[in-house]
Amino acid sequence: MAKRVAIIGAGVSGLTSIKCCLDEGLEPTCFERSDDIGGLWRFTENVEEGRASLYKSVVSNTCKEMSAFTDFPYPEDFPVFLHNSLVLEYLRMYVNHFNLLKHIQFKTTVISVRKHPDFSTSGQWDVVTETNGKEKFAIFDAVMVCTGYLSDPSLPLESFPGIEKFQGQYFHSQDYKHPDIFKGKRVLVIGMGNSGVDIAVEATHVARKVMISTGRGAWVMSRVFDNGYPWDMVFLTRFMNIIRNALPAPITGWLIASRVSQWFNHANYGLIPQDRSVMREPVLNDELPGCIITGKVNVRPNVKGFKEKAVVFENTPGEEPVDIIVFATGYNISFPFLEESLVKVENKQASLYKYIFLPQLERPTLAVIGLIRPLGPVMPVVEIQARWVTRVFKGLSNLPPVSTMMEEVNEMKKNKKNWFGLSFDEVLKTDCLVYVDQLASSIGIKPNVPALFLKDPKLAMKIFFGPCTAYQYRLTGPGKWDGARSAIMTQWDRTLKPTRTRVVKDSSSFHPYLLHVFGILALVIGIYLSFN
Amino acid sequence: MAKRVAIIGAGVSGLTSIKCCLDEGLEPTCFERSDDIGGLWRFTENVEEGRASLYKSVVSNTCKEMSAFTDFPYPEDFPVFLHNSLVLEYLRMYVNHFNLLKHIQFKTTVISVRKHPDFSTSGQWDVVTETNGKEKFAIFDAVMVCTGYLSDPSLPLESFPGIEKFQGQYFHSQDYKHPDIFKGKRVLVIGMGNSGVDIAVEATHVARKVMISTGRGAWVMSRVFDNGYPWDMVFLTRFMNIIRNALPAPITGWLIASRVSQWFNHANYGLIPQDRSVMREPVLNDELPGCIITGKVNVRPNVKGFKEKAVVFENTPGEEPVDIIVFATGYNISFPFLEESLVKVENKQASLYKYIFLPQLERPTLAVIGLIRPLGPVMPVVEIQARWVTRVFKGLSNLPPVSTMMEEVNEMKKNKKNWFGLSFDEVLKTDCLVYVDQLASSIGIKPNVPALFLKDPKLAMKIFFGPCTAYQYRLTGPGKWDGARSAIMTQWDRTLKPTRTRVVKDSSSFHPYLLHVFGILALVIGIYLSFN
Repeated sequence: MAKRVAIIGAGVSGLTSIKCCLDEGLEPTCFERSDDIGGLWRFTENVEEGRASLYKSVVSNTCKEMSAFTDFPYPEDFPVFLHNSLVLEYLRMYVNHFNLLKHIQFKTTVISVRKHPDFSTSGQWDVVTETNGKEKFAIFDAVMVCTGYLSDPSLPLESFPGIEKFQGQYFHSQDYKHPDIFKGKRVLVIGMGNSGVDIAVEATHVARKVMISTGRGAWVMSRVFDNGYPWDMVFLTRFMNIIRNALPAPITGWLIASRVSQWFNHANYGLIPQDRSVMREPVLNDELPGCIITGKVNVRPNVKGFKEKAVVFENTPGEEPVDIIVFATGYNISFPFLEESLVKVENKQASLYKYIFLPQLERPTLAVIGLIRPLGPVMPVVEIQARWVTRVFKGLSNLPPVSTMMEEVNEMKKNKKNWFGLSFDEVLKTDCLVYVDQLASSIGIKPNVPALFLKDPKLAMKIFFGPCTAYQYRLTGPGKWDGARSAIMTQWDRTLKPTRTRVVKDSSSFHPYLLHVFGILALVIGIYLSFN
Repeated sequence: MAKRVAIIGAGVSGLTSIKCCLDEGLEPTCFERSDDIGGLWRFTENVEEGRASLYKSVVSNTCKEMSAFTDFPYPEDFPVFLHNSLVLEYLRMYVNHFNLLKHIQFKTTVISVRKHPDFSTSGQWDVVTETNGKEKFAIFDAVMVCTGYLSDPSLPLESFPGIEKFQGQYFHSQDYKHPDIFKGKRVLVIGMGNSGVDIAVEATHVARKVMISTGRGAWVMSRVFDNGYPWDMVFLTRFMNIIRNALPAPITGWLIASRVSQWFNHANYGLIPQDRSVMREPVLNDELPGCIITGKVNVRPNVKGFKEKAVVFENTPGEEPVDIIVFATGYNISFPFLEESLVKVENKQASLYKYIFLPQLERPTLAVIGLIRPLGPVMPVVEIQARWVTRVFKGLSNLPPVSTMMEEVNEMKKNKKNWFGLSFDEVLKTDCLVYVDQLASSIGIKPNVPALFLKDPKLAMKIFFGPCTAYQYRLTGPGKWDGARSAIMTQWDRTLKPTRTRVVKDSSSFHPYLLHVFGILALVIGIYLSFN
């Protein structure tokens, strides 16, 4: 039975791992190479090697109710989507509230994690750490790797002929901090992930010209979704998930694509994905279409090559002068402290059961937490991972036989293109609701919705039709939290509070029922007109 | 018969007035107090007294096809919505193409415009101008006042108790140029017109905190409208206008409000107009809701008063620290060179027939051009005004009897609240399509759509169902332009060209017909679910 657990990293995954260890009566020791908590979410003016790095303006892509840990809602006066400084503040509140700080050793780098000689029976690990130049050795019963996937930038210069001749400045998006460097410059951003688009949009504040190059395009969504509700609270519901998964994949894909296109026609804006049959992770940005239609951002195809002071695009005559290039080309996954034989990363894909466990390890005492990119909030997903892992460590949950695990892992790798896409660097993305429910079932904390409809129909309605907030994983089973029901019932209050800062008495003289009648009438007229 | 025409101001209204005079064989002399053309649209780093002033980032609120003069489309590679520098470039192209420059006297201020002694028979005007300190006198047969309404800022400090105690900085939005002054500051913007919202949004790039105070709220629309098409090309069609004007006002108002709310619920964002029965001019901003939901902009009610370093809002406990206040409180209308007895401005409203002529003047030889704020593009409207005015000057169009004009003017003033609102500072706004059609009828250039459906149904379809671009006022009658039909047929090409900068071959395997079927199915399911 594992007792002493080494946790590597004190970011979101590391912090919740400490808490989950404590909840299960384990003894966590968290090693953090920097001098503070927060990981990715702690902005610093300088890039620190081996640590994920933010630009100053980063705002969370998922809203506060969806992003909260299962038993710790965000304060009601926090904005709906959070500036990175507020996410860090929330993490500090979490650390204080659950008293996690004393379990963290700062300025301590994990040098190596090796199987203890009797690993096959004990499952123990030899961990070497380094603090202020002094190495230290310790034996742990289990290890949780919480280092994330955003610390090793991928800069595939070899794919860009002529880059060696280019006389301007270029850097990876990880090195981006402030838009000031773009002042008066002609900027080219390569890559259309969230960072690439954020940087391109922000560059327009000061740059002379901004281009963004993308081969495969992207669906772009706004945080401000249907009627202005947060996209994830509308999109991520149990009800919608059942519908999406029940319909044939092309229809689901088409429905989503046409919903996304209501905002703007992606072909007319040069953004349309090359392969529309795969619903890749959408880019979340509220400003991009406005920037395109006003000529502030220019969307371009793949780069063919560079010249001294210019770029040439595929299928495009001529060249375009460029002063600065930003490579928003993503990250490599790496675990420098582990033997390569242990975790092999191919095509940015590690063979991990449930994205967590090495299936062929003799004992399940090494877990990778947070190596996922759900279409949705990260925090509750990593917390559920940690809750499951700590129970596996304790022997309260069991992994299936190796063959079953291997089969599932290989199935995943074999590029089953579901609508989140599983190809190439999409492999870390997962349908978070289905995935979290699987883990929750193993722990015994998955809400039984049908039963709940009989027992507490009000709550069941919220859970089934409402946003799939993570408080529902504290309603029952191990780790049950008394505040869970009330947190669910008040989730919309906390969402609307920060923006309803000017309230006007309703002067509408229309009865809501009448509005509905007119609405349907208008819809019918609209449909009639569209088809005539 | 008027021959020599004095034109005051070389902005949009003045330039097109010169051109219209030339087209009608009149002799225009344009007096411009600055040293260049462009008026409002020429950005300068410093505010020049008596001249409208832009901030650096201003982008046009109407798209290039809707904003073009009737016989001079924008270049196809210009963006859809235009940065102010490109509007100025367009004006320079207009000036060069029609050879207008030689009719402008720069650095010349009009000191006074007085009736010539025999005015009642001759209709002539004594005009005194000043160039480099030297006064000059001349007699003109007619005068076109093209000075606009954005040069005399309204700063109603008396409505803000305690402002005299306030120790921070404050200024009128006219003095705003760059966001740099907001760096690290707590900013309060008062007023929710287009400038106020633009400034608040731009302040978020650098400010510590941004609040915007509005008593009456506003409907906010995005330039990126249905499926990403420019709002004005979707909204301003003859077909839609007929429907809007045919339905009872409350239903039209409600339909528009519910359309606007699809983007976001204005009550939840603190923006809901206080009086929802009046459809005021919407604010156009693509970024405001994104800024509100991420907490970057805080919407607040009216200001109750100021303290040394803080503001107190109505119906809000406590006070909020503030470093800088921007009064986006609009402008006064003034004609300093005219006798007050000639044009009396009350409640920001001048009593002008068709917003142009003084109804009680003995001879119709004084016209005010551009004293309107249409919900839609300004340029084509002022051009049609100028085309009509020059024909009135020549005696080719006649004004109705004084009593008829006075009746119409009084009717307007009596606050007939149509859905654009006509109260207080809304008085300059007008339903541009109906208004322009009235002027066009007087000139004889209004397209006869029913007849066109028989003669040229393709063109008629575009004119009736498509965006109401102004080229259609060059299809027939005086000033007919041979390029008009082709300009209309290609208006969407010029709109899509600048954003379709990355083209992907359509990989969709769905037949469009199937898409429609699924679309309706989805709609029906959606409606069914909403009402069950």
